[in-house]
Amino acid sequence: MGSRKGKCMVFERPPVLRAAASVVGKKEGEGPLGHCFDVVNEDAYFGEKTWEKAEASLQRTSAGLAMQKAELAPTQVDVVLAGDLINQCTPSTFGLVEFGIPFIGLFGACSTCAEGLAVGAALLNAGYAKTALCVTSSHFSTAERQFRMPLAYGAQRPPTAQWTVTGSGAFVLDAGMPAKSGEICIRAALVGKPVDMGIVDANNMGAAMAPAACDSIQQFLQDMDCTPASFDLIATGDLGALGYGIVKDLLGRDGLVLDNVYDDCGLMIFDRETQEVEAGASGCACSAVVLAGHLLQQLREGILNNVLLVGTGALMSPTSFQQGESIVGIAHCVWLSRQP
Amino acid sequence: MGSRKGKCMVFERPPVLRAAASVVGKKEGEGPLGHCFDVVNEDAYFGEKTWEKAEASLQRTSAGLAMQKAELAPTQVDVVLAGDLINQCTPSTFGLVEFGIPFIGLFGACSTCAEGLAVGAALLNAGYAKTALCVTSSHFSTAERQFRMPLAYGAQRPPTAQWTVTGSGAFVLDAGMPAKSGEICIRAALVGKPVDMGIVDANNMGAAMAPAACDSIQQFLQDMDCTPASFDLIATGDLGALGYGIVKDLLGRDGLVLDNVYDDCGLMIFDRETQEVEAGASGCACSAVVLAGHLLQQLREGILNNVLLVGTGALMSPTSFQQGESIVGIAHCVWLSRQP
Repeated sequence: MGSRKGKCMVFERPPVLRAAASVVGKKEGEGPLGHCFDVVNEDAYFGEKTWEKAEASLQRTSAGLAMQKAELAPTQVDVVLAGDLINQCTPSTFGLVEFGIPFIGLFGACSTCAEGLAVGAALLNAGYAKTALCVTSSHFSTAERQFRMPLAYGAQRPPTAQWTVTGSGAFVLDAGMPAKSGEICIRAALVGKPVDMGIVDANNMGAAMAPAACDSIQQFLQDMDCTPASFDLIATGDLGALGYGIVKDLLGRDGLVLDNVYDDCGLMIFDRETQEVEAGASGCACSAVVLAGHLLQQLREGILNNVLLVGTGALMSPTSFQQGESIVGIAHCVWLSRQP
Repeated sequence: MGSRKGKCMVFERPPVLRAAASVVGKKEGEGPLGHCFDVVNEDAYFGEKTWEKAEASLQRTSAGLAMQKAELAPTQVDVVLAGDLINQCTPSTFGLVEFGIPFIGLFGACSTCAEGLAVGAALLNAGYAKTALCVTSSHFSTAERQFRMPLAYGAQRPPTAQWTVTGSGAFVLDAGMPAKSGEICIRAALVGKPVDMGIVDANNMGAAMAPAACDSIQQFLQDMDCTPASFDLIATGDLGALGYGIVKDLLGRDGLVLDNVYDDCGLMIFDRETQEVEAGASGCACSAVVLAGHLLQQLREGILNNVLLVGTGALMSPTSFQQGESIVGIAHCVWLSRQP
């Protein structure tokens, strides 16, 4: 049931995105997409004692809600694909362990949402499973203290910095029945390759990830015989203003003009004028909650019919950064399509 | 081309393990399997300035060697599946980035070898790719300083502690041609579910992982209509002496006697009498290099014909440990079979 076109995985019987859930924090709730999210919690601790436990709670809530919307008990879900930014991906483990679902742990940094959807759709389309749950999360406070500075230091953020989204997105993929008219399915996906352009500034992730996004977008369009016009929207994950500009510049040099269809989830979720997020948003939850809360709604309503999600990730750690390694970018593409 | 039997993924056209490579450190080279490994390096830094870079170098070396043995250039490999124990899996990123192969990042702690083989075989069998590379690594010094104590403290190790293997194993999976007589293929795999038995001692990982191993072994045998006698060897990844005993006890209570066919990679690689490794070995590299260096050789020679690799992982971090969370175990099964 699976096939390959160039480097892309093509799904002959496209898995359906049966349900999705988005859970976010206060700041995300105050942003321009605030009304789209299922749960907005004012408490950054989500009732827990630590931020790490809060992030696990985010995953537990979004996964539970997605299954509830799909009217599935955890025992009816064949496999979960999950990951996050935190050391050893503990929010995924501790957020999801109680469901007891066979567990494929991923690490793709902020590309995890797209990575999970790509691999999950591949397994479902091939017939290894009927139902998959894809979950990811990020939390501003867990990410800042792990990757940059303890929050209590009150360190200044440079204008290239991005604001890690506090939230979790969960998606139920279903291969039990062919997609019906109006349903959203995953038609194809591309696993991206890591790209190292020598960027060493952990406060300029967008620049580190942009070349990988360009590489994957070009590869996907070429392999699938598509043009930018084949999509109503090409949405990168979390490049922010700098990375967004770099992608347009780099692709423009190759004669590929994305202008009308290109946007970045990291520019959608906050209002940069009023919300003090510098270059925009980032984090695994950025593309996950924008997709779960906003884009899927637009797809369901037919405002969008074909979306290319380009999940972007910065593969680095505080240790690699301190040891002078550069930041490796990666980008995975997922083609979401409304069944006519 | 993919199908499901119970919770197992069954591969109708089993991907072939075309080549494997194992690279280890000095202590592993001095152990009972020392003669099996492709490269034994006396220098714990592998020529690098830090242990983390050394671990990246381990992956680069094993991956390069596996591709060389398979007579493949990196451009001929469709996808790499890799992960490790280190924060944000940087040894995988920095070890493999130069090959430029589409990259699926995994986090499965010490179960990563089995996780990569399971997901990789699934993608190949389904037709999404023809060639996959599965890589993982661990390093005693990166793991100790990250998970337990700075090495320079000279902290005492309790008798339940396990010694993290310094090494990397890499495997080239090939779906281009059906398996020929004498070749080793992957017939089926099971993605395990996370199991939390409330173990909170980071120096007793074997006990934390053993219940997950039992759960996955029972599930696999039941779903595939197998008995322990269907295998010449059931090998858990890195339970060590304590976890090994717990698995035998727990399964024995359910009437499942594994005695003659059961062993643990964590008990094979070192000589516990003379090498001061306490309860045995652990780390992502443990099952990876035992499989790549030792078990595959025995399979190729027909000494073994059917091996069930049960990759075991302890899903935790120093932060989760300090915050009082328990250690969640997971185990993935991979059925390796010599083509008659």
